[in-house]
Amino acid sequence: MKYKRIKEEAYEANKQLPLLDLVLFTFGNASAIDRDLSVFAIKPSGVPYSELRAEDMVVVDFEDRIVEGTLRPSSDTKTHAVLYQTWTEVGGICHTHSTYATSWAQAQMPIPILGTTHADHLTIDVPCAPVMDDQSIQGDYEHQTGKQIIDYFNRCNLNPSEVEMVLIAGHAPFTWGASAAKAVYNSAVLEELARMAYLTLQINPEVAGLKEALRSKHYERKHGDKAYYGQE
Amino acid sequence: MKYKRIKEEAYEANKQLPLLDLVLFTFGNASAIDRDLSVFAIKPSGVPYSELRAEDMVVVDFEDRIVEGTLRPSSDTKTHAVLYQTWTEVGGICHTHSTYATSWAQAQMPIPILGTTHADHLTIDVPCAPVMDDQSIQGDYEHQTGKQIIDYFNRCNLNPSEVEMVLIAGHAPFTWGASAAKAVYNSAVLEELARMAYLTLQINPEVAGLKEALRSKHYERKHGDKAYYGQE
Amino acid sequence: MKYKRIKEEAYEANKQLPLLDLVLFTFGNASAIDRDLSVFAIKPSGVPYSELRAEDMVVVDFEDRIVEGTLRPSSDTKTHAVLYQTWTEVGGICHTHSTYATSWAQAQMPIPILGTTHADHLTIDVPCAPVMDDQSIQGDYEHQTGKQIIDYFNRCNLNPSEVEMVLIAGHAPFTWGASAAKAVYNSAVLEELARMAYLTLQINPEVAGLKEALRSKHYERKHGDKAYYGQE
Amino acid sequence: MKYKRIKEEAYEANKQLPLLDLVLFTFGNASAIDRDLSVFAIKPSGVPYSELRAEDMVVVDFEDRIVEGTLRPSSDTKTHAVLYQTWTEVGGICHTHSTYATSWAQAQMPIPILGTTHADHLTIDVPCAPVMDDQSIQGDYEHQTGKQIIDYFNRCNLNPSEVEMVLIAGHAPFTWGASAAKAVYNSAVLEELARMAYLTLQINPEVAGLKEALRSKHYERKHGDKAYYGQE
Repeated sequence: MKYKRIKEEAYEANKQLPLLDLVLFTFGNASAIDRDLSVFAIKPSGVPYSELRAEDMVVVDFEDRIVEGTLRPSSDTKTHAVLYQTWTEVGGICHTHSTYATSWAQAQMPIPILGTTHADHLTIDVPCAPVMDDQSIQGDYEHQTGKQIIDYFNRCNLNPSEVEMVLIAGHAPFTWGASAAKAVYNSAVLEELARMAYLTLQINPEVAGLKEALRSKHYERKHGDKAYYGQE
Repeated sequence: MKYKRIKEEAYEANKQLPLLDLVLFTFGNASAIDRDLSVFAIKPSGVPYSELRAEDMVVVDFEDRIVEGTLRPSSDTKTHAVLYQTWTEVGGICHTHSTYATSWAQAQMPIPILGTTHADHLTIDVPCAPVMDDQSIQGDYEHQTGKQIIDYFNRCNLNPSEVEMVLIAGHAPFTWGASAAKAVYNSAVLEELARMAYLTLQINPEVAGLKEALRSKHYERKHGDKAYYGQE
Repeated sequence: MKYKRIKEEAYEANKQLPLLDLVLFTFGNASAIDRDLSVFAIKPSGVPYSELRAEDMVVVDFEDRIVEGTLRPSSDTKTHAVLYQTWTEVGGICHTHSTYATSWAQAQMPIPILGTTHADHLTIDVPCAPVMDDQSIQGDYEHQTGKQIIDYFNRCNLNPSEVEMVLIAGHAPFTWGASAAKAVYNSAVLEELARMAYLTLQINPEVAGLKEALRSKHYERKHGDKAYYGQE
Repeated sequence: MKYKRIKEEAYEANKQLPLLDLVLFTFGNASAIDRDLSVFAIKPSGVPYSELRAEDMVVVDFEDRIVEGTLRPSSDTKTHAVLYQTWTEVGGICHTHSTYATSWAQAQMPIPILGTTHADHLTIDVPCAPVMDDQSIQGDYEHQTGKQIIDYFNRCNLNPSEVEMVLIAGHAPFTWGASAAKAVYNSAVLEELARMAYLTLQINPEVAGLKEALRSKHYERKHGDKAYYGQE
């Protein structure tokens, strides 16, 4: 019973993925962490969203051990574990193969910041971590995927509380946030930013990136000390 | 009770936005004005459309004071206020980040008039107001956004009763009309015009704009003195 | 009561348009003819599909006189009249501003035949009638639109029983068939052909048109003397 | 009664096609085989999916003889027959004209492997069999289509258990699998791979194919001896 909260939270987050049109079949997963217990609940691998139940969520620790649950956890579980372990402010993680974000990942390019919808959520291009080296792929692949994300954020000096999304070149996006619901929200936002950036560049390949003043203004009005978006 | 009509009207208009596929999450807002009382009702900031109730609409005056309502109004309220105050024939306003219209805004380009669907609604390209200067952005941003629209219409000698839509470069569209319902209708029309103009130019980048005779004919049959579209 | 069949037929056909995603708001209309009485039933102008009732269908003759009905008929009624009067084998007509077909019309280009889906329905490119001259536009526009289609088919030696669709450059498509239902079916097929031709040329701008043998084979197996598609 | 299983299986598979947005009207069909009896059940030709019933499925043998059923089988039945007869491990086959996969077929190009979503299902480009010669088209066309697929797989040394999909240039895709449900699953996956490859190349026409190590890794974790995706 002590994992009830995170299992419910992970379940509700996973159920949003098909409703937000972010997954085909079982191509995605979301998780929620209990920081006090250092365990997280994640979608079981390959189970259709329509058959998913809260009690099916698998609870695992950072060493990939199943703490509760009879099903095999998502094959991407180790990537979630690395991110949770390193970034202690993260409460939930989401991974999808959503169409437009994945196409940018396959194009191996960051998603340029071209408008205020983007700046409402982050003030820089959505980063794209490079394709991993063969050794990392052939080794502990999912663990290395997590490390790849962390390393890239460190190298670029990015703050995971300000940039809550990343593309893995040749693969797909990961997003995170204070909760599993927020991580899923970020996946849906990312998909729309990816779609609009694609269309924008088709319309005008020469367009300039969004000017600095607009980036700050839109980000600050939603996330700054004096934010005035939403109901506190 | 005296704000009941505009609160109902604003509520119904806002409820149309997700049904018309014009908003993701809370990325949009519509308002309705009472010209006798010089106040308008607008969506509360950041409240999901599925949870919205007519009584939640916030009634504000032109000086951004809340006249009725317990929630914080949309962060774009001041833009609505400027437009209402300057353009006295406007009865409703709508702002969305709809995918195709926003992509043209991000491309910082007007939407060219390429067909009769466009001419049924306006006889010129959909105007795109330029990106604001840094001072306006850093100052009273939402107020300045409204001023930016008015100034651009004045500079281009546009009539807001004939051109009921605008793109803000780097941001997104605003639309308006005789009522909040008409403003939302214009947002949906704009989105489709934006989508078809995008596709048309992908198919034939060299295509000429619509000839003058067709522009007038289609606009006049719907809006002219001898209009014969619709039931009176 | 003697117009009941065509009013029902026109009503059912019009109701399909939003279900098939071919219209935004009221941007489309379908009609059905009674050849014995030389009258046809058509959608009333500007009435939302959700409010449409079979009894609202307007019955008109070839001289644009209302024979039955209290509402104003579609503004495109005269175009329907010309097509019915000239092409005596036509039983139903449909006009939409569907997204992809209209984009090809705006691009002022025929839709090239690139695959068997197209050849299942017609063996040549979907024709695109040129933009009308100013005099025709300023005169009896909707009547001239019908004449423009007929003239173009005559000039190109096209058979309206084999080619049941046309684009009007700068405007949108018209389709027809043995019944109103078949005309609507053709509008939906045209929209999908337009979408796939667009995508095909984006993927490979140099692709060759479909070879003659495949055109004949697919058309004949559905429409030839020895057709073996469907249940007779 | 002895064909009940395959009729049910074919029925359920066909019903998935419109739900997965893979067919317009009747443009697709799925079948299921009984290897013991050497017969398969397939959709009747031209029957709308909404009217389909399990008892309408037509049971045929490899010589195109109807073994059970009163309706005419799909016009593509002979193609299914050739594939079943040659590839004895196949349990179900699906044919659609889904938008993006068909556009690649019309572009007469294989779908390049650009990401791990693709590698999760096959480690090479989705093959595109060339347009048939005129003699094959004019002869026993649907039989020849099956032969064309087999010949192309043999020529390229492809294993139909590893590559469960193919495009026919100028036509559309065929997919197969251990069951009719798996064949339909593969059609949906193919459509998404086709869509993402299209978008990826629009974003970055110069992007490199997915590196070998990622292809193997993703395929093996789902299909290899040590697969760890799903619940066994």
